[in-house]
Amino acid sequence: MKIGFIGLGHMGNPMARNLLKHGHTLKVFDVVPDLLKRLTDQGCAAATSARDCASGVELVITMLPSSPHVKRVYTAEHGVLDGVGKGVPLIDCSTIDPHTARDVAMDAKAKGNPMVDAPVSGGTGGAEAGTLTFMVGGSVEDFERAKPILQCMGKNIVHCGDAGNGQVAKICNNMMLAIEMIATAEGMALAAKLGMDPRIFASIANTSSGRCWSSDTYNPYPGVLENVPSARGYSGGFGSDLMLKDLTLVTEAAKAARQPVVLGGMAQQLYQMHSAMGNGALDFSSIIKLYKKD
Amino acid sequence: MKIGFIGLGHMGNPMARNLLKHGHTLKVFDVVPDLLKRLTDQGCAAATSARDCASGVELVITMLPSSPHVKRVYTAEHGVLDGVGKGVPLIDCSTIDPHTARDVAMDAKAKGNPMVDAPVSGGTGGAEAGTLTFMVGGSVEDFERAKPILQCMGKNIVHCGDAGNGQVAKICNNMMLAIEMIATAEGMALAAKLGMDPRIFASIANTSSGRCWSSDTYNPYPGVLENVPSARGYSGGFGSDLMLKDLTLVTEAAKAARQPVVLGGMAQQLYQMHSAMGNGALDFSSIIKLYKKD
Amino acid sequence: MKIGFIGLGHMGNPMARNLLKHGHTLKVFDVVPDLLKRLTDQGCAAATSARDCASGVELVITMLPSSPHVKRVYTAEHGVLDGVGKGVPLIDCSTIDPHTARDVAMDAKAKGNPMVDAPVSGGTGGAEAGTLTFMVGGSVEDFERAKPILQCMGKNIVHCGDAGNGQVAKICNNMMLAIEMIATAEGMALAAKLGMDPRIFASIANTSSGRCWSSDTYNPYPGVLENVPSARGYSGGFGSDLMLKDLTLVTEAAKAARQPVVLGGMAQQLYQMHSAMGNGALDFSSIIKLYKKD
Amino acid sequence: MKIGFIGLGHMGNPMARNLLKHGHTLKVFDVVPDLLKRLTDQGCAAATSARDCASGVELVITMLPSSPHVKRVYTAEHGVLDGVGKGVPLIDCSTIDPHTARDVAMDAKAKGNPMVDAPVSGGTGGAEAGTLTFMVGGSVEDFERAKPILQCMGKNIVHCGDAGNGQVAKICNNMMLAIEMIATAEGMALAAKLGMDPRIFASIANTSSGRCWSSDTYNPYPGVLENVPSARGYSGGFGSDLMLKDLTLVTEAAKAARQPVVLGGMAQQLYQMHSAMGNGALDFSSIIKLYKKD
Repeated sequence: MKIGFIGLGHMGNPMARNLLKHGHTLKVFDVVPDLLKRLTDQGCAAATSARDCASGVELVITMLPSSPHVKRVYTAEHGVLDGVGKGVPLIDCSTIDPHTARDVAMDAKAKGNPMVDAPVSGGTGGAEAGTLTFMVGGSVEDFERAKPILQCMGKNIVHCGDAGNGQVAKICNNMMLAIEMIATAEGMALAAKLGMDPRIFASIANTSSGRCWSSDTYNPYPGVLENVPSARGYSGGFGSDLMLKDLTLVTEAAKAARQPVVLGGMAQQLYQMHSAMGNGALDFSSIIKLYKKD
Repeated sequence: MKIGFIGLGHMGNPMARNLLKHGHTLKVFDVVPDLLKRLTDQGCAAATSARDCASGVELVITMLPSSPHVKRVYTAEHGVLDGVGKGVPLIDCSTIDPHTARDVAMDAKAKGNPMVDAPVSGGTGGAEAGTLTFMVGGSVEDFERAKPILQCMGKNIVHCGDAGNGQVAKICNNMMLAIEMIATAEGMALAAKLGMDPRIFASIANTSSGRCWSSDTYNPYPGVLENVPSARGYSGGFGSDLMLKDLTLVTEAAKAARQPVVLGGMAQQLYQMHSAMGNGALDFSSIIKLYKKD
Repeated sequence: MKIGFIGLGHMGNPMARNLLKHGHTLKVFDVVPDLLKRLTDQGCAAATSARDCASGVELVITMLPSSPHVKRVYTAEHGVLDGVGKGVPLIDCSTIDPHTARDVAMDAKAKGNPMVDAPVSGGTGGAEAGTLTFMVGGSVEDFERAKPILQCMGKNIVHCGDAGNGQVAKICNNMMLAIEMIATAEGMALAAKLGMDPRIFASIANTSSGRCWSSDTYNPYPGVLENVPSARGYSGGFGSDLMLKDLTLVTEAAKAARQPVVLGGMAQQLYQMHSAMGNGALDFSSIIKLYKKD
Repeated sequence: MKIGFIGLGHMGNPMARNLLKHGHTLKVFDVVPDLLKRLTDQGCAAATSARDCASGVELVITMLPSSPHVKRVYTAEHGVLDGVGKGVPLIDCSTIDPHTARDVAMDAKAKGNPMVDAPVSGGTGGAEAGTLTFMVGGSVEDFERAKPILQCMGKNIVHCGDAGNGQVAKICNNMMLAIEMIATAEGMALAAKLGMDPRIFASIANTSSGRCWSSDTYNPYPGVLENVPSARGYSGGFGSDLMLKDLTLVTEAAKAARQPVVLGGMAQQLYQMHSAMGNGALDFSSIIKLYKKD
């Protein structure tokens, strides 16, 4: 299949390479020439603009950093909708706010192009290994059409409902994740301060009602689990500033919907404080630094 | 074995009956005559005071509502330590603050009696079924001695370290639980408000990094799971006021240890607000009422 | 002086009338015909667009509901900058985010028009009475030029520094106000719950270190002060939804600046919860309803 | 008048000296010999116990660090109530929880001694200068009797209602103060981060609805006011750990009363975090360190 791929950064690059491995032909675009070159070196054709990248292909995939980028790449002059053939399906894998996702999908539909939002979880590791989870918003028909392509890049392809719902699933999940990570940090640090071995406390919480992914799979307390960021000084993983970005997205979506998210708002503030203290590049489990001396 | 059992309420009564079923002989005491009678009707001997209950038995078990009760029942005049034979082991199953647990254990040790704190999780259902989890604080030797008796009343008997650590494990786990329940309530309510089917969102979160016991086993959103309190108007289960009690214990233990628990403190406040609105008797998953109209 | 005035709602209408009273000639515009008519009935000339309103006048004043409105009215086709004469000064009295204020001021400057942001405090009462406070951002020269006109509508005209700083002053002040109002609500409700006469407590706090405008001038507890919203069921005054709007502005400005505002974020959430409970139209001191039964 | 004075620390010492200056005769007691000596050097008689200190005097004043101290000094064996003559009035100036204050006052009354709680504000500076504020709980008659003596040590003597209400006034005021200080810290730091001169912002807030004692009299931002702790590296003043102690008192009183204090609980957590970072000895306005780099 001939695919246009726009956005070739940390995530987009390995995703595009996985499509190549599955025998697809790629035309690629990025505003950073160096990122572009790394893929044309692998045999992809270089496009000169988003519009060019979208012309003459059977499918367009985008992986961009934020809502304004998505809006521009699709709807501005020289954008995707300017160049894409009628009926060609569009897949946006960026994590953005649900309202923009719905707006752009509507614009695409008006031009005759079916579009799904398909944000991912799994990080750069999952992108390399082709084991990402895709949370897909769009009609059943559009989801079914996107699925075989997404399976070249991921393992779990989940239908979340109509356009925008991929984003809703992603940001609501990540809000729960952030709160639960802080809950785990507070619980672990307090148990240790009150005189308990953190490994024993983790083993108990993990078989009790306090268990969560942050405690049993990604524990923030050093020495509890191996092969997680807390075991290596919080390097690698999912950066605190990326979590802050998702918390900002979700609290703004909540404001727009006039929906209270008290602990979500508090988590946003705590990650903001953590970042202002200079820890934005560390994995998000480093939030435990607010609660214990190193 | 001849056992003295003090505190015969909702939890103590079925725990005592499970000991009877396993062939033990019980001498029981409670300040409420009616609670006492319900067990003497089952063949237990009635004691006239905590001291009397502790005299002439091979083991003492207590199940009491709060720290001051435990302090008084053990150390006041006519209390357990006044009457118990030297060397007789003591097991306190109450949920209380770790400092009191350690103080009383120290007093017991000074009198020559080994004591463990062994708070439970599993609620009245687990007490009836004999499937409680016991989190035990005390020496390895004292833990091993208590274990076979606790197995008459529970399924998971976990050693948490020295005296007081059973309480630490219990309250730190419950703090995580409360925060994660609110996280789930906020995530579910927001996903629904943003237009997503709550059951689909739950199924995604439960296989992603946002999963926790509150989302996959005890979901607060009505219609997501069967046989949980949210499926029956939040009746039964673990009352909001009981959760508030545990949050009060844990935030006070954190204050005494000068340890911040920001979301823990916030959870305590939100349950306080929920209770002040008249919902204290509903299951603790009803906290979602702060986030959605019925 | 010949002035173009755009935005003729609850605030803009009385402000425009005060300019008339001082002998200025007005050309006015609003997208709502009825609002327009209410001022042409007073002798103002009607414009057909923002551009038209800005043509042939010596000064332009705008009073609009939000950042996107300001952006559009000034910079879109048929907007103010399309029609205004070179060098004509511009005054925007809307409360919007500082970044948009600075962007629009920069666009105006590029066209040769000096612009100040001049958000107000004092509400509709102050607008009627001509006693508003204006917080003005712009150069000293531009501030001095705007001052005599603003004095037709207000009493306190304060220079806050460069363009955008009027907005900064407004939203940071209102964030403090919201937090202090909740602080007062919590303190008053707790003192009453602990058995103290709320009037006596207020009189003490108001002469002590806990005093603030919310306690000594606008107390939220019914019966403490006369002639405030709490004395009349929280009608009139500054609506909770307007406070929520300002809190949303300020927390988003904080996010963009990567600055933590923990209690600010919490205040935003509490007003969101209050609004979701149906109290958005009540004065913002009604937040005390979260803390006491009526 | 012959007065027994117990508790001779940072506050008690200057308060006792002010009584001497007004011509009263003092019998004093403290468990720390050195503190005792500093007052016997000034001509006070030394007592050997609280009971001894209370015997043969016409009035007893106490200034102690916490609830358990007050309970013990008054009601334990060899305590005040053991030795004091019938009808001799008692004044406790400690800051403690209202419930303990009421309990002890009731015990005193049962023995025939009228007692008032009279916690102070004004710090060591006010104690030296004799300008403290006393918040007095007790009957009108008992208040009137205590007033002339308190006027030897303070300027404002305020009647707060029945026994315990002095404590209620003190801790509720200080909760408001702590929240308002954090509000000011957040507002000042954000205004500065958004590009505004902090002195200009303070001057605006101080004449607007955001004004409070923390902004106009004790501003935490360095360079805004002279002669406050922020002007001298946060030395002197009212220590963060003392504020933390009061916040702990007030949140526990709120829990006991089942009253939510959401921002109060959050303030308690933030001061706990600040203290855990090693800033407990700095003035409480140093909480702004959580919000800005030095």
